Amino acid sequence: MDFDALYSKTARRLQPSIIRALLKLVQDPDTISLAGGTPDSNLFDLQRYGAIAESAARVQGRRSLQYGETAGWAPLREQVAAYLAGRGVSVTPEQVLITTGSQQGIDLLGRLFLDEGDCVALEEPAYLGAILLYKNMGAQILPLPLADAEGLDPAQVEAALAAWQGPKPKLLYITPTYQNPSGACLGPARRQALIGMAARHGILIVEDDPYAEISFDGPPPKPLLGYDKGGSTIFLGSFSKMSVPGLRVGFAVGPLELIQKLTIAKESADVCSSVLAQAVAAEFLKGGHLMATLPTLRSAYHARRDALFAALQGQLPKGTAMSKPAGGFFLWADLGPGYDTQACFQQAIDAKVAYVPGGVFFARPGAGRSTLRLSFCAVEEAKLVEGAKRLGAVLRAQTAAV
Amino acid sequence: MDFDALYSKTARRLQPSIIRALLKLVQDPDTISLAGGTPDSNLFDLQRYGAIAESAARVQGRRSLQYGETAGWAPLREQVAAYLAGRGVSVTPEQVLITTGSQQGIDLLGRLFLDEGDCVALEEPAYLGAILLYKNMGAQILPLPLADAEGLDPAQVEAALAAWQGPKPKLLYITPTYQNPSGACLGPARRQALIGMAARHGILIVEDDPYAEISFDGPPPKPLLGYDKGGSTIFLGSFSKMSVPGLRVGFAVGPLELIQKLTIAKESADVCSSVLAQAVAAEFLKGGHLMATLPTLRSAYHARRDALFAALQGQLPKGTAMSKPAGGFFLWADLGPGYDTQACFQQAIDAKVAYVPGGVFFARPGAGRSTLRLSFCAVEEAKLVEGAKRLGAVLRAQTAAV
Repeated sequence: MDFDALYSKTARRLQPSIIRALLKLVQDPDTISLAGGTPDSNLFDLQRYGAIAESAARVQGRRSLQYGETAGWAPLREQVAAYLAGRGVSVTPEQVLITTGSQQGIDLLGRLFLDEGDCVALEEPAYLGAILLYKNMGAQILPLPLADAEGLDPAQVEAALAAWQGPKPKLLYITPTYQNPSGACLGPARRQALIGMAARHGILIVEDDPYAEISFDGPPPKPLLGYDKGGSTIFLGSFSKMSVPGLRVGFAVGPLELIQKLTIAKESADVCSSVLAQAVAAEFLKGGHLMATLPTLRSAYHARRDALFAALQGQLPKGTAMSKPAGGFFLWADLGPGYDTQACFQQAIDAKVAYVPGGVFFARPGAGRSTLRLSFCAVEEAKLVEGAKRLGAVLRAQTAAV
Repeated sequence: MDFDALYSKTARRLQPSIIRALLKLVQDPDTISLAGGTPDSNLFDLQRYGAIAESAARVQGRRSLQYGETAGWAPLREQVAAYLAGRGVSVTPEQVLITTGSQQGIDLLGRLFLDEGDCVALEEPAYLGAILLYKNMGAQILPLPLADAEGLDPAQVEAALAAWQGPKPKLLYITPTYQNPSGACLGPARRQALIGMAARHGILIVEDDPYAEISFDGPPPKPLLGYDKGGSTIFLGSFSKMSVPGLRVGFAVGPLELIQKLTIAKESADVCSSVLAQAVAAEFLKGGHLMATLPTLRSAYHARRDALFAALQGQLPKGTAMSKPAGGFFLWADLGPGYDTQACFQQAIDAKVAYVPGGVFFARPGAGRSTLRLSFCAVEEAKLVEGAKRLGAVLRAQTAAV
């Protein structure tokens, strides 16, 4: 059958994630991978999850193994609202939609707002999965460069909007807290300024927040949703980094009217997310397991950030700018003019170390060539030190060519 | 914020399922509901699922609680291929994509093939969730009336295609085995004829197969996919009826090229389905639990079909045509000209019995007014008998008006 003759415009545009292809290159067990973005499964508390899963099926199975409400398992919606209250956000359970990971939230919002050719503004660099998704949908992208370790500068965003020749953006997609890939964290004043700007321009802020609980210097900052009185923000949360990804439990939280519309879109997409997984997630929040397990994650990732950051000192070429993020999974480095991290990727693989060339996180083709993302999340400290050495040797060898 | 000013065309079209609204009307515990379409949770084997879930998290948690491959948990893909081999379908695990229920399969296929205004052909009556999904996508629908208890007549389909003035259908969506709502089951000769026709016309058959294992007279028929040598069929299966819906585990199976394209679409939609739920489903198949539990489901639903069918004899108005399906969850009745099952729905609710007016299963507005769907799946036999009495009284009272 000739599928090519039948495919839709969306199908013709579809691009898979480059990172997945890249990770397949890194299967050699002797290679130290600073390329991954998945949490360290050695930190999962399996006994705890085993007991919760058993109870969710055996005790609650009449409901947890049945079809569920599209909007989500009621006890989980309550727990998510309670969790957000602890972060300074006041919402009702009715304002919470449970999604299959926060990726589904990005996808459903794209479907609700973007026709082909519509515009979405996003940070540059940004989460690759969002860039690809918007491109797959046929959207135009207005890239907004991060100003510094505090992320977007609202004045620069305002200027970029004024200079933009395309259609007015409908969405502003941001990861304000310990961003993937840069580690940037938007300051409180900038959060408020961005909300004001979005409201003035009639742009919906999509606040993607998977990393916030992996915070190294005290509790994470209040989400934009907590500052927003005008309903210009929708918040996307996830269990994937603060606990485990395998449940695929995320949540979209925002204005009731929008959540109801999203719920109809979700009904059409998959009826509801795994109810068993939702029941497990609800018990994980309700039983205090989140707060019991977070310190272990935070201290492990914190120590790894410190180890990789320290090991890279003196290893990277002179003039390299490197982030020291206050949370999340990634260091971000910019080697400066003339360097090309894509070009020397194969040398790194040959030297048994892997990273992600930063260009993939830029919406503009060819941008970000001198940048790279270095994950400390899933590698033990001794290996981080050795990986930094191998990486330094490869990158310093490029210096002559620059 | 004025969301209406920002919504996409898809968002403006979105319609929720009428059945969900209807089921909310039927909360009164004294009402006997023949309206539902969910399996009887009293038939779920909770001990078994509790033990499987516990092991999936505690023993396999390093992987089952981690991100998974977008295409699905490898042991589950193998088990699905083995399951289909038992039904006469020879496929490799690489031809299996795990989805969040079979609904996600319908959705992803719609996205891959349908641009706004493109055409999809489907049975009439058909699964409401598919009709709505295609309408939400802005597709044109070519309705193909079921000929009889054996479903579509290929000659009639050929004639309908020849007479159709719109764009050539890209997809033919069918539920050939124990269809929702009609209970019809496509015969083997018709299966082969439909495949030949689809191949000649370059139409992809979407074979939705959730009910096949709920078969009352021996094993279910071989899927169309098992007859298809030319790659014109994609098969959608699900755990929702043959075991439990709460896992939200479905599978799309077909030509490798198409499965790979669907996998990219799924990556963008939700990265992967709940890995924990997939690990539970894999063990359910691998450990022989499916075949251990199916006889209980089959015999319970079989007895209920018999009870409702017998109880309705003499209750429904003269001239009513009623199905006696060989599997699935539903009886289907057509009261004949002049009857309007939507109009007398409120009287039924007042009489403490509920059903689904059949018109909702027709793509054409106003069609199917004299039909109704009666579920026997989740009601015990004594209540089915009483429900049939109440329903008969309401419907016979309409006879005078006809």
